[in-house]
Amino acid sequence: MDRIARMFATHPRPASDAGEEAFALVTAAAECAHTCITCADACLEEDDPAALRKCIRLCQDCAVICATTSTLIARPGAQDRNVLEAQIRACIEACRACADECGRHADHMDHCRVCAEACRVCAEACERMAGALVA
Amino acid sequence: MDRIARMFATHPRPASDAGEEAFALVTAAAECAHTCITCADACLEEDDPAALRKCIRLCQDCAVICATTSTLIARPGAQDRNVLEAQIRACIEACRACADECGRHADHMDHCRVCAEACRVCAEACERMAGALVA
Amino acid sequence: MDRIARMFATHPRPASDAGEEAFALVTAAAECAHTCITCADACLEEDDPAALRKCIRLCQDCAVICATTSTLIARPGAQDRNVLEAQIRACIEACRACADECGRHADHMDHCRVCAEACRVCAEACERMAGALVA
Amino acid sequence: MDRIARMFATHPRPASDAGEEAFALVTAAAECAHTCITCADACLEEDDPAALRKCIRLCQDCAVICATTSTLIARPGAQDRNVLEAQIRACIEACRACADECGRHADHMDHCRVCAEACRVCAEACERMAGALVA
Repeated sequence: MDRIARMFATHPRPASDAGEEAFALVTAAAECAHTCITCADACLEEDDPAALRKCIRLCQDCAVICATTSTLIARPGAQDRNVLEAQIRACIEACRACADECGRHADHMDHCRVCAEACRVCAEACERMAGALVA
Repeated sequence: MDRIARMFATHPRPASDAGEEAFALVTAAAECAHTCITCADACLEEDDPAALRKCIRLCQDCAVICATTSTLIARPGAQDRNVLEAQIRACIEACRACADECGRHADHMDHCRVCAEACRVCAEACERMAGALVA
Repeated sequence: MDRIARMFATHPRPASDAGEEAFALVTAAAECAHTCITCADACLEEDDPAALRKCIRLCQDCAVICATTSTLIARPGAQDRNVLEAQIRACIEACRACADECGRHADHMDHCRVCAEACRVCAEACERMAGALVA
Repeated sequence: MDRIARMFATHPRPASDAGEEAFALVTAAAECAHTCITCADACLEEDDPAALRKCIRLCQDCAVICATTSTLIARPGAQDRNVLEAQIRACIEACRACADECGRHADHMDHCRVCAEACRVCAEACERMAGALVA
């Protein structure tokens, strides 16, 4: 994802100097979106997917919410601060809920362990971005 | 979009009895997502798109946030309430901000007038769904 | 979805006179995307989701492909014809594969019956749009 | 994006042994989707965005098509081969068209240069994945 950092550096008129936090969040949210997609698919392929319905749905919801976060943050130009903050808040909720649920299965399903990790990293990147927006 | 209502009626285990509010929100958010996509495209095609940057970006942000809302709400099975509420909150912020900005151009650009209307309808459907979640 | 038709009518510089086919396709693809999302969720909630893995995955794939189709077609300005044609072709493949699989379960699961119907309607709207692009 | 590779390694039942090509494509398509989003935003912020309408639209189309590709390929379980091939074909068309257009501006706009690069890398990853599917 090196090119994403280079893209941020070439933007003619970035709205803020939170470029570092923004790049970290785009990367973390894109990674989390895809680990969630793969985790939902892996859960579906386990022997008893009926027992994993909650995990599958949280992964699916977290995936689309993270993808929206990375899309919004990948636009360095001026954006509405209330919208960004509310999106980041939704992303934190989704990542935390998914990390909690995947964390429950982390002992016996490696995909849930890695996915929970990605969710926590994304939630932290969201927190840092939210802090940079306020500053 | 009649089939979406029929889909809701055929789900084996809906998590709530907010089916009516959910169907209304899926329809309103899907409509709003697409009016925002078309409005951004129309703004880009106006004689002076540089004057419409803010409107284009808000339409783009609102489009992806509304699409995420309609995706989440189109899953009638059990979901995390905090995640749903945070997503609906983000959607209300995006729809209001976009309705305000498009509303400023409504007099001289019909696409902004119709788009602002769709944003307001979606924000109201979000409010009703949020109310149904709390009930 | 009335406002989508009105949006098309207000665009300052539509690239083609295929507005009617485009509006029909945006509506059909948006409907199909959401029936597929709901169908995958309903399949997951059936007593034996392990038996429905293929159906769930096809619904998920068809949902994202249809959402991309409706997004592209909702931009009436000039677009690359090869890209549009290839996207419409992918959408036809996804809708047909999903209609076939859902069609197999249509007798005993109403959500699959309605979803198969939405997929066929979208595939037909794609065919008509492809025809209009060539003309 | 290391965790995406780890997710692939933990899937209980991958449908193919094209894991390496799949991981490369998920990463390239996710990167390309985001460089395209940033490039469209950067073009919009240039002094004369009206001169860049074609580039903006191609970047937007390429972004959503690449996001759909990375979503589909991030599901290692069994999928319909015709659908995957058609989606990869659409992605190649979008990446090539966007690389050509961005390539035209590469001399004087760095964001277009980097974006064209990401598009070419993604098109190549698509070609390799298509080859692995046939094998």
